[in-house]
Amino acid sequence: MTTPNFAIPRSVIWNDESISLLNQQKIPHVTEYLELKTIQDVWEAIQSLKVRGAPAIGITAAFGLALSALQDEAVSLVTFQENIRKNRDYLATSRPTAVNLVWALDRLVNSITHVKSVNEGKTTIVHEAIQVQAEDEAVCRLIGEHALTLFNRGDKVMTICNAGSIATAKYGTALAPFYLAKEKDIDLRVFACETRPVLQGARLTTWELMQADVDVTLITDNMAAHTIKSKGINSIIVGADRIAANGDTANKIGTFNLALLAKAFNIPFYVAAPLSTFDPAIPDGSHIPIEERDAEEVTTIQGVRTAPEGVKVFNPAFDVTPNELISGIITEKGIVTGDYTTEIRNLFS
Amino acid sequence: MTTPNFAIPRSVIWNDESISLLNQQKIPHVTEYLELKTIQDVWEAIQSLKVRGAPAIGITAAFGLALSALQDEAVSLVTFQENIRKNRDYLATSRPTAVNLVWALDRLVNSITHVKSVNEGKTTIVHEAIQVQAEDEAVCRLIGEHALTLFNRGDKVMTICNAGSIATAKYGTALAPFYLAKEKDIDLRVFACETRPVLQGARLTTWELMQADVDVTLITDNMAAHTIKSKGINSIIVGADRIAANGDTANKIGTFNLALLAKAFNIPFYVAAPLSTFDPAIPDGSHIPIEERDAEEVTTIQGVRTAPEGVKVFNPAFDVTPNELISGIITEKGIVTGDYTTEIRNLFS
Repeated sequence: MTTPNFAIPRSVIWNDESISLLNQQKIPHVTEYLELKTIQDVWEAIQSLKVRGAPAIGITAAFGLALSALQDEAVSLVTFQENIRKNRDYLATSRPTAVNLVWALDRLVNSITHVKSVNEGKTTIVHEAIQVQAEDEAVCRLIGEHALTLFNRGDKVMTICNAGSIATAKYGTALAPFYLAKEKDIDLRVFACETRPVLQGARLTTWELMQADVDVTLITDNMAAHTIKSKGINSIIVGADRIAANGDTANKIGTFNLALLAKAFNIPFYVAAPLSTFDPAIPDGSHIPIEERDAEEVTTIQGVRTAPEGVKVFNPAFDVTPNELISGIITEKGIVTGDYTTEIRNLFS
Repeated sequence: MTTPNFAIPRSVIWNDESISLLNQQKIPHVTEYLELKTIQDVWEAIQSLKVRGAPAIGITAAFGLALSALQDEAVSLVTFQENIRKNRDYLATSRPTAVNLVWALDRLVNSITHVKSVNEGKTTIVHEAIQVQAEDEAVCRLIGEHALTLFNRGDKVMTICNAGSIATAKYGTALAPFYLAKEKDIDLRVFACETRPVLQGARLTTWELMQADVDVTLITDNMAAHTIKSKGINSIIVGADRIAANGDTANKIGTFNLALLAKAFNIPFYVAAPLSTFDPAIPDGSHIPIEERDAEEVTTIQGVRTAPEGVKVFNPAFDVTPNELISGIITEKGIVTGDYTTEIRNLFS
């Protein structure tokens, strides 16, 4: 018998000459880290969805650009900078809708505007990529610390989807407080909704919490009301895909359900998200477009058909939770609550 | 091109010398009717879950006992009656927890207490089995007629699980109004929740409504809130497994979720069930035991694993919806609403 070795999993690890990338498509069945050695490897890994989670995608792309910089054979600084810009454009095509990806790449490109040599450019880019990852980890840790102030020892907390460590640099957003609680020996129990149709809760959230020995119980999404009542759930915490200026929050489909149940049972409902998730240009949730995805996601589960051929399907990927159902939005700068429009404006001033 | 031939599917068909039984395990992939020719065939079909739905199980067992009566070679009436009692006991073991099964079998046994000959016994038993089916069909049709008075042309109605034609003699309970609406050319649209973990909504409800050309759209369970809001769902209708004296209703897991959402959106939430589903001996829902089933149902979907090995699972098969969330209970004797304790007592007086 060996003692189990628990640890918070990371999805992206920088090895100076390569990137180790957790293959999230094989979780929870196989824990496999891909060794990415070229910018082509990185493009391919992002494009084929081996990595998911906006911050994790941005970090992977940043390290990809850093790899390409280290391997660049340009002698002149101008040529080097030009090559980096081309590589930036190439990596940006791996996942055209990922905002974090372009943001991280542009940050690296800008970091070498004023360097004096190719060598300084290479070390600067690598340093900047490491910074992108380190800053995200620090942001997640701060979110976790703020969130942890909302829970009491022994609390049972429900979540949906995977706003977790493997979607970010480390810790995640909605899952961060559970890792910090573990560090501090505070006993918390997580109830993870499986999150149909793509099952991020069943596949990813249970897996990553189990890696860190956090107490987690899996339920199907329709068990939420009965579980809240019969298990005495104390609160609900979720991540966010986009938060409007008034606090209305778009997140994985099913989040709105949970917010309404929280209200019905009179328990708090929290959103955990970094400042980068806010979109102050959007006044409220009605302006957030809801992507509808393939019927196949609903009619098959991991390739197995579960519904009749030709059945009509409605498959919205997200829903919008109105601000009045949100007890607090937990950011790296603290917890906003109450008059969200004013509070969110203050966050950015 | 042939014109599609739409019809309300039946799960049990009596052919005088055999039973045709819809193999519900193969729905929606293959529409297969098993030919049951002996009481052993019937025992096996019930035990191996080829048929589901309390009324459909009872009807299948009744026809099984009728088959055994027709095939009985006893000369003396006493021996014949004794054989029938033995066969009744044998069939009762096929699904020990199914109340309808024993109820239907005992009704047939009792029907031959006063017959004068083996031949009269045989025709009496067959007649009684046909009656069990015919009465259930009549009850379902009445439920459908009462339910239909609650909907308006063009309504969008949500349901969960399969309280459908193939779970009963015909029409079903919660699905009955949609078949009657189709007969009367009243346009209704059904939104079927897939109903994890066993997916009765995805597999069965969509299939049977499509057979009858009823407009049905499949969603995952966690899409309910967003669908109610964005599609303008007008009401929700569900079946019931057991109804307490005060109207508290045990039904498939996820029903309680929907009832809470109906309240949040201020739309009516209806339960459709025959009188046989009421259990006046139970004062309220807190006395209804909630069966917890195998973790495997949650961690695998049709044999495909979706969650880590060894993950903790909570898998309640039912939940209880408190009477105050129910806008009306639709029975064959009409719709009860308001003071459920009094109204339900009146139903039975």
